[in-house]
Amino acid sequence: MPKNTNNDYQKVLAISKVAALYTSVQSLLQWDQETYMPAEAIEYRALQAEAIASLLHKQKTSNKFSLALSKLIDLPTGLILDPNLSEPKRAALREWRRDYLQHTKLPAAFVRNLASTVAQATHVWANAKQHNDFASFAPYLEKIIGLNRKKADLLGYDEHPYDALLDLYEPDTKTAFIASLFTRLKGPLQKQLKRIMASPTYATALSAQDLLKRPFASDKQWQLAQKILQALGFKAQTSRLDHSTHPFCRRIAPRDVRMTTTILEDSLIPHLLAVLHEAGHGLYTEGLPAQHYGSPLGEDSSLGIHESQSRWWETRIGHALPFWQYFYPQLQAYFADPFQSISLKQFYGLINVVQPSLIRIHADEVTYNLHIILRFELECALIEGHLKVKELPEAWNAKMKQYLGISPSHYALGCLQDIHWSMGAFGYFPTYTLGNLYTAQFFIAFEQQYTTWQERVANGEFGFMRTWLKENIHQYGRQFMPREIIQRVTGQDLSEKPFLHYLETKYAEIYP
Amino acid sequence: MPKNTNNDYQKVLAISKVAALYTSVQSLLQWDQETYMPAEAIEYRALQAEAIASLLHKQKTSNKFSLALSKLIDLPTGLILDPNLSEPKRAALREWRRDYLQHTKLPAAFVRNLASTVAQATHVWANAKQHNDFASFAPYLEKIIGLNRKKADLLGYDEHPYDALLDLYEPDTKTAFIASLFTRLKGPLQKQLKRIMASPTYATALSAQDLLKRPFASDKQWQLAQKILQALGFKAQTSRLDHSTHPFCRRIAPRDVRMTTTILEDSLIPHLLAVLHEAGHGLYTEGLPAQHYGSPLGEDSSLGIHESQSRWWETRIGHALPFWQYFYPQLQAYFADPFQSISLKQFYGLINVVQPSLIRIHADEVTYNLHIILRFELECALIEGHLKVKELPEAWNAKMKQYLGISPSHYALGCLQDIHWSMGAFGYFPTYTLGNLYTAQFFIAFEQQYTTWQERVANGEFGFMRTWLKENIHQYGRQFMPREIIQRVTGQDLSEKPFLHYLETKYAEIYP
Repeated sequence: MPKNTNNDYQKVLAISKVAALYTSVQSLLQWDQETYMPAEAIEYRALQAEAIASLLHKQKTSNKFSLALSKLIDLPTGLILDPNLSEPKRAALREWRRDYLQHTKLPAAFVRNLASTVAQATHVWANAKQHNDFASFAPYLEKIIGLNRKKADLLGYDEHPYDALLDLYEPDTKTAFIASLFTRLKGPLQKQLKRIMASPTYATALSAQDLLKRPFASDKQWQLAQKILQALGFKAQTSRLDHSTHPFCRRIAPRDVRMTTTILEDSLIPHLLAVLHEAGHGLYTEGLPAQHYGSPLGEDSSLGIHESQSRWWETRIGHALPFWQYFYPQLQAYFADPFQSISLKQFYGLINVVQPSLIRIHADEVTYNLHIILRFELECALIEGHLKVKELPEAWNAKMKQYLGISPSHYALGCLQDIHWSMGAFGYFPTYTLGNLYTAQFFIAFEQQYTTWQERVANGEFGFMRTWLKENIHQYGRQFMPREIIQRVTGQDLSEKPFLHYLETKYAEIYP
Repeated sequence: MPKNTNNDYQKVLAISKVAALYTSVQSLLQWDQETYMPAEAIEYRALQAEAIASLLHKQKTSNKFSLALSKLIDLPTGLILDPNLSEPKRAALREWRRDYLQHTKLPAAFVRNLASTVAQATHVWANAKQHNDFASFAPYLEKIIGLNRKKADLLGYDEHPYDALLDLYEPDTKTAFIASLFTRLKGPLQKQLKRIMASPTYATALSAQDLLKRPFASDKQWQLAQKILQALGFKAQTSRLDHSTHPFCRRIAPRDVRMTTTILEDSLIPHLLAVLHEAGHGLYTEGLPAQHYGSPLGEDSSLGIHESQSRWWETRIGHALPFWQYFYPQLQAYFADPFQSISLKQFYGLINVVQPSLIRIHADEVTYNLHIILRFELECALIEGHLKVKELPEAWNAKMKQYLGISPSHYALGCLQDIHWSMGAFGYFPTYTLGNLYTAQFFIAFEQQYTTWQERVANGEFGFMRTWLKENIHQYGRQFMPREIIQRVTGQDLSEKPFLHYLETKYAEIYP
């Protein structure tokens, strides 16, 4: 490229790399807060986080940055000014512009107001959840919804205010598209659920769950978690596992991936599956191109793509037979009681019980997305104003009844169960289901190349799968939009069909 | 105070508080690096640290800061412009000015050059130490000495270039003063050592050490360390203990003190004493006034005062009988073998064996300061240029022979044992001995008030001691210079006599 273009590109990159340094420091502050920070340090930690967030905002919206960037890409239209620029660099400019516009469209006063509202709201939400007191949270939720509508107005949208919010988490994805996708998804899911519950083997499957109702020693659970990470190829030199109240994965920097897990003595299998889930996130971040760290080319593509990677390992590996052909003997060695007296086949049934339940994060593969669809529909209605906050609990319960046939006795089991709304994260939930759909489509492409993957996984081989994911998805960072990735990897547009087909085939076998 | 003064003071304070936020983030980066960071993350961690260091430097040397500060204190002379300002605020201005002048006298290019030299030198030093190869380190040491002389020139001094370096660690303390103090100290120390080694009980004391030569399980050592911290009043809500290669204590923020320890299976008692040492540093930082965090009034007074607090708990408590009257039964319960067959009196002798040794950090109370005096004398000679780097090993060995009667067979046991010089820290070593002298003087004042402290400590009471230290020393932060603190607390100027008297009395009893 011409010398000037190159100079400007290097300028943009240098500023972006400093922003990445601040982001990495922010990640460490957050990781520490959730793992090791003494409880009473929280007050000062909030000030530390605010200081870094403010630096980050300044860095990303500086005149120096916009000046250099606008010599490469027309900020109002997105037109790239040097036609000879390489594809990856054009993509980086597109994403830098996207971020820049997002950051500059929201005035600092608005961002501060939202941040302080959210800080209060998460606190009030936690109390409201604990004391089954929706009324105390309602005014905060109203304020947050108001701020989200304002946010949508500030960011701008063509069709639906929710588009602007969705775009923050899943770029280039519209509300109408999601609504139509979810409509095509929810009927078949409900139908499948009914079919499964009517299966002659269903009652037996449910009652077999009692076999796992017993304590499992924490230290052994911890060792098994470590064994899973080692099997997947994580190295202590570049990653670690710690304890936290909720499991998460955070990349602090290249070659520094931190995963956490939550161990409960009465919950072994969900724990190990959660480890696989976070491992999937971890493998994605390890697979991002380190040489592009600090540029969008080194970042993850979207929340949906991130979730597709975690769900790949959690559902397509952790809920599948081949993984347990490999790992079940180790589980049996650690917990002879009860697993010595449970066959692998029986165990496979146990970890794939389908059952309507009130809590999203405990839901099985079939019902999970109904929880998400419910939230998406309610979110849209709240943002549109068709649903009032005070009507939310009833609307929630009605939809639960309609989709899953059950309804909660407490708000903690209902509309107060998730932290997302109190955090102001409207538009986030759909990415969970998108992740599941992406996974199903990616997996078809993968299976075409590796027809014998099941044998290899049963032998404890995972490297070929890591490599496939890295080569097809991770290595491109944000170069491609989520829908583009799907197109490139599978040759198809995003569709609910592969996912539904996967569920049908799998559960027809489990519940004949 | 007048409104303008108050406005300017608040401006200075606000900028200083942001600097404190950056410092706290820097502390977290360092703590993480020494405790949990995956090894290969180090390269990026250096960039993170550099980014924060650069922010900190900008914050502390900004025009806004110097403008507001210079309205309150005349920067060239230190004259405080508003005569009605309170004593603590005058002190804060004095310290802000000191820091500002230090930060601005060193040009950015010089600081960068020093930082990169040090980064290489610590690496080369570690290798040189491992491979007994002084020659490879020599050119780096020469460069570091050159940079330290340059640093002294930039900072300025009246009498001796070493004054400028010393002042960075122990303000208001001159080379000539230290030289004279150390001269008065070293003769009596050598004399005491000779007397002890000639004692009829000496040979028995040495051979009794074999009783402790055995492995002590790491998990039990860890539990004992936690018990010590709990006994001293540390709470999990505001502090924590972790593992690291070398023990340290770092305040991340108010209500967030992080201590570390290093457990070796063959070294139990040194481990527990090291925990007491770091606990002393921890108690100091916990005792600093949190309401002044971000101002010099909330910071520690000097390295020497910090060390006096760690040595208080390590030597005056950890090496004394009352603490073990309380704690020895617990030690015996954890390690019945060998402690059930060692009497408390015998144990007290064991932990107070005096023996010339090559390694400073393993030295006893009597010989420790001879190690420091040796380093101080060599440092001065190196800075003055009277001693050439290539002559250092021989000079080191000659002084070891002279002061302790032994000399090292390897550089790792000699002039390459400490990291300080490779880190560029000339002027640091004397603060270790100053700490010991301060402790001895503080302790006399303390004993006058608490004549029965030994009984209370033997009962496991430590709160009254924490309170005394906080009220007399910690609560003032940097309001008083080290020598002023000594004056205020003890009514005397700094002197070697109380320390020498303490040693004589104590060891006359142990080695009659």
